[in-house]
Amino acid sequence: MRASRTRDRLLDVGLRELSVHGLEGVTLGSLARASGLSKSGLFAHFASKSALQIDLLDRAATFAEGNVVRPAMATAEGLPRLQNVIERWLGWSKRAGLPGGCPVAAAIFELDDLEGDVRDHVATLESRWRALLLALVERAVQLGHLTASTDVAQFVWELFGIYLSHHASARFLRDPEADRRAKTAFDELIARYSVDAGPTPKKDKEKRT
Amino acid sequence: MRASRTRDRLLDVGLRELSVHGLEGVTLGSLARASGLSKSGLFAHFASKSALQIDLLDRAATFAEGNVVRPAMATAEGLPRLQNVIERWLGWSKRAGLPGGCPVAAAIFELDDLEGDVRDHVATLESRWRALLLALVERAVQLGHLTASTDVAQFVWELFGIYLSHHASARFLRDPEADRRAKTAFDELIARYSVDAGPTPKKDKEKRT
Repeated sequence: MRASRTRDRLLDVGLRELSVHGLEGVTLGSLARASGLSKSGLFAHFASKSALQIDLLDRAATFAEGNVVRPAMATAEGLPRLQNVIERWLGWSKRAGLPGGCPVAAAIFELDDLEGDVRDHVATLESRWRALLLALVERAVQLGHLTASTDVAQFVWELFGIYLSHHASARFLRDPEADRRAKTAFDELIARYSVDAGPTPKKDKEKRT
Repeated sequence: MRASRTRDRLLDVGLRELSVHGLEGVTLGSLARASGLSKSGLFAHFASKSALQIDLLDRAATFAEGNVVRPAMATAEGLPRLQNVIERWLGWSKRAGLPGGCPVAAAIFELDDLEGDVRDHVATLESRWRALLLALVERAVQLGHLTASTDVAQFVWELFGIYLSHHASARFLRDPEADRRAKTAFDELIARYSVDAGPTPKKDKEKRT
């Protein structure tokens, strides 16, 4: 019981470190310093650096699910739920109380050219998240909220682009326009596949008058 | 003369390391190992770790300019040149012979929550690149290739999203569809702002028959 409480506390400290410093920045040494435990004491809880990294990534995913997916499930199925998930997804790490950005997004750029257990685990987390988004978009199509000709995989591919561009502009560039830009991009993506598609007249009205 | 040749060779080795391992992965120690020089020999060429990182990022930017921008300048101004730059930008590091991904994209996710000279330098490189894209889109508007109501900053914001999603899907996911997805997203972005705008009828034709 005590060991599991200590482990939980270590994972909390480690997740905060991870969100700021990335996977290479979290080591048993840095975790020992940040937690005030001895390095050898840590070995009782994590067998290796990559075991620690995998546990931290899982904790990040659990955090994201709790902060993004679970509360959105109260929203009506189809497009409303998809929109709610996207709103909660963008910038989720800050609202979840993490001092840095999304650990999985950062890991995708950190590990893209490396091999190993940690990379494989990030790929699993990414594909689980992608599957969730695919299912949400698919459901919006089934319910007739998006046109039957929607290219669901393309839609989700572009959603990841909006998420990554928002992450870069909100966190790296500290651009106050980041949220508005992401919302515009998402609205345009929906307009492209909306049932009464047509020429998105909204845009012309806004810009030309 | 000899010193500058050695320095060039070190930067070549370092840029390859950087593209695979990221900024934290390139240290004077790893560069010494990779180049076969002694660590103290390296200090003659780079004053500090961050000076080395900044020199490597500059080399990456010069590489990108040579491989992406310069050859595209032969294309007609406006939309053709913008399209040519985007085609060359997507996946440029591989075609430039680097073993890993785009060092600046990776640095944006690595340094987003940190402070310092290296972060500031990445911000300068990013804004220089963004200014180039803004000018290309602006020119396409001036020449009437894109509608006068084009939101140029939004267009470029979404271009970054396409670039980052392509980087993640091509390099991390190794998705053979990455190029096609990016092209579709880019074509749709252009269609949204094309002069004879309207309801992008192409899409419906493709999907519904």
